[in-house]
Formats: sequence, C-alpha cells, structure tokens
Amino acid sequence: MKFGKIIGRVVSTQKVKSFEGLKLILVQPLNEKLNPAGDALVAVDTLQSDIGQIVYFETSKEAGRVIEKEMNPCDAAVMGIVDDINITESK
Amino acid sequence: MKFGKIIGRVVSTQKVKSFEGLKLILVQPLNEKLNPAGDALVAVDTLQSDIGQIVYFETSKEAGRVIEKEMNPCDAAVMGIVDDINITESK
Amino acid sequence: MKFGKIIGRVVSTQKVKSFEGLKLILVQPLNEKLNPAGDALVAVDTLQSDIGQIVYFETSKEAGRVIEKEMNPCDAAVMGIVDDINITESK
Amino acid sequence: MKFGKIIGRVVSTQKVKSFEGLKLILVQPLNEKLNPAGDALVAVDTLQSDIGQIVYFETSKEAGRVIEKEMNPCDAAVMGIVDDINITESK
Amino acid sequence: MKFGKIIGRVVSTQKVKSFEGLKLILVQPLNEKLNPAGDALVAVDTLQSDIGQIVYFETSKEAGRVIEKEMNPCDAAVMGIVDDINITESK
Repeated sequence: MKFGKIIGRVVSTQKVKSFEGLKLILVQPLNEKLNPAGDALVAVDTLQSDIGQIVYFETSKEAGRVIEKEMNPCDAAVMGIVDDINITESK
Repeated sequence: MKFGKIIGRVVSTQKVKSFEGLKLILVQPLNEKLNPAGDALVAVDTLQSDIGQIVYFETSKEAGRVIEKEMNPCDAAVMGIVDDINITESK
Repeated sequence: MKFGKIIGRVVSTQKVKSFEGLKLILVQPLNEKLNPAGDALVAVDTLQSDIGQIVYFETSKEAGRVIEKEMNPCDAAVMGIVDDINITESK
Repeated sequence: MKFGKIIGRVVSTQKVKSFEGLKLILVQPLNEKLNPAGDALVAVDTLQSDIGQIVYFETSKEAGRVIEKEMNPCDAAVMGIVDDINITESK
Repeated sequence: MKFGKIIGRVVSTQKVKSFEGLKLILVQPLNEKLNPAGDALVAVDTLQSDIGQIVYFETSKEAGRVIEKEMNPCDAAVMGIVDDINITESK
C-alpha cells in the first residue's frame, strides 16, 4: 500500500452498476516523507475520509474487497487513515 | 483508477470467445489535470461512451468483472463517465 | 490491453504441467501508433496468430482465463487479432 | 517478490474492518545487492519481524492470503525473513 | 511472462506457512536479447532449474498457482526452462 492525500472528489452519474452509491475521491500518492509521488488516482472511499487527510490506499485487485459486494470491480481503495508514521531505521 | 479520454475504436474479428460482442475502445490515459499520461490502451466499454468523452477506467484484474460473465478475461474497462472533478486541496 | 506484434516463438520442453501443449509466442508491445514500446514478452497464444500479425494482449491475471483450465497460471495472453484501429480524436 | 528492510511502523486507528488487529509496517524495497530501490511501502506483517530486518515481500493480490481471512484486502505483505542470499552467477 | 536467468538462492527459515518446503531462487530478468532488464527478484521454483539456466517466469497473481495449494500466496514463479528462442520478425 502507498500513502496518499485526499485532494478532491469525482462526480460521475453514468457508471457501472456496482459503483452506484459509492464515493469516488481523488488521491495524490505520497512517498514515506509525504512528498507527492506520481499522478493522482481515482479511488473508492468507504471510510468517510476528509479532504486533506493522509491515508494509505491500495491499487490492486484486492481493493475491490473493501466494498461489501464480493464481485465488485475496483482497483483503488482507501484502506485506512494515518495517525502517525514512525520511521526508526535509515534507508 | 485513472482518467482517460476515448480516442478511437479497435476492430477485431478473430478474438477469444469471451470477447465476442464486446465493444473495444482506445483510451488515452490522462492525469488529474486531464493532460495525456502514457500510451493509449485497448479497453472494454460497456457504458456506450462516446468518442471524446472523459471517463475513469481500470487496468487490473477487476476490470473483467464489469462484463457479466464471471470468468471473462479482461484487464482494462471503462468504469464510469466523468461529470466533474473537484480538486480542493493542493498536492 | 496493449497492442503487440508477434515476433517469434519460444521453445520449452521442461515447464509447469498446466503449460503442456500450449503455444508460447514472443510479442513486442506497441503503442497506439504501432511503434515499439518496451521489451518483448513471452505470451500464450490460443488464436493461432502468425508471425508479424498485430494483436492485442493482456499482461494481468486475467490472461490465464483464455486457456480452458480455470486454475491455469498465465500472466500474458493474446486476446485478439487487430483488423483495424480507428483513431478519431486527438490526444 | 522483492527484498526489503523494515524501517518503521504505521499507526492507524480508523481503517477498513478486515485490517483490525493487523500490524502495519513500513518497508523499504531493496535490490539484490540490498541497496534501496524505490519508495517505501506500507505492508502487513504477520511474522513479527523487527525494525532493521531484511525480508522478502509481495506487492500483488496474493499478499492478502497471508492473512487468515480469505477475502482480506491487502496488496503488500512480508512473506519471510532473509537468512542468507547466495548469488553464484553474474548477471 | 519475462525471460530470466537463475543467479542464486535465498535462504529463509522464518516464513509464512504456505512457503514451507518451497525453493526460493533469485532470478535476473532479461529482455528478448537476454540482456539484464531491471533488478533481480525472489521467485518460487518448482522445476528444479539450475543456477545459470534461462527460464521464463511470471510476476503476477497467477504465479501462486504453480504451487499445488490453491490459496498459496506467491507473486513470482518459474514457469518453464527455455530451450530456444526464435525471433523471425524485426521489431
């Protein structure tokens, strides 16, 4: 999983059935120093995270399982909100 | 998921069985500012999106589940059409 | 999925059981202008495509499902042969 | 799988249900000479590995299966602790 | 799948249960001209391949299915040993 910051929302009326009712957010990937790393992605958020919050998210098949419908197609989802990052070893 | 623009169609007569009857489109990946980001991809489109429309799409295993045949092989599919993108936080 | 050109074959006698009897081809990934993009890959071909043909192929988990054995391990497979690509929108 | 060094921990109270009770670590990917390669990732650790230890980890769908709940969403997990790496052939 | 050369072994006593008894090898990815391409990876080898052999391997979810335990977590596995590569078409 990667760190990310919630930077916006995506509005979409016409979408695949399994996405109805889901919140789509725009997440900016961050490295472990919380600097931007790559382009922003569209992700599903089931945690009611707020704009500006630091989260960790997935970008693989497993992301779909956050949503409580087993066959839901989804490749990016917020997994948790970061309280603290303790880096105690140098690279 | 990533943003993309529908830029064309792919015509293919000879294909794997599970792709029969499906529309194949050419999608140009875009970043969150809707600038091109990387090479165009061939994707399955079940939403009847039009040439020029901005969509969000998946490029993972889950994409196959958009199609209503559980074991369908597909690694890229249009998930929804974008109405609006609200970016309210700087990177 | 990506475009690719069949550029050769791979001969392999000693392989995992589920690959017995399958044709392995060498595919050169191409961008939408059909210029080479990245290194060639080893893929499974069930479509009897010829050397030099332009195809679209997958490089994800779903590729394994082309083969008619559900649990078959395979991460790259030819999905169809390209007849025509219509690009009607600029990037 | 890739080599990595455990460099820290991630504290997260608000997370998806399936992550409750799991330890989240920060792993720095390493190449085969154990030099840093890319940004650190958030991974699940079920092996009680210590800060500073060299491990091998996965960053794919399969990672979720380390956790003993079949449908658990997780895309990065520590698979084992490295005792020794024997490189006996030049690149 | 990609080509690779077996360049070493990884010794690991403490690992996830499903990896007990499996051989872990170090594989150097190669391009189609068999030149090194990227960093070496840790992979599962069920084919008893030797140090120095050229193989083709997977780096996706499907790799886990080589191992005869359905839910085995593994994202890299040797699929076959290369006898010959015939490149008959230019890029």
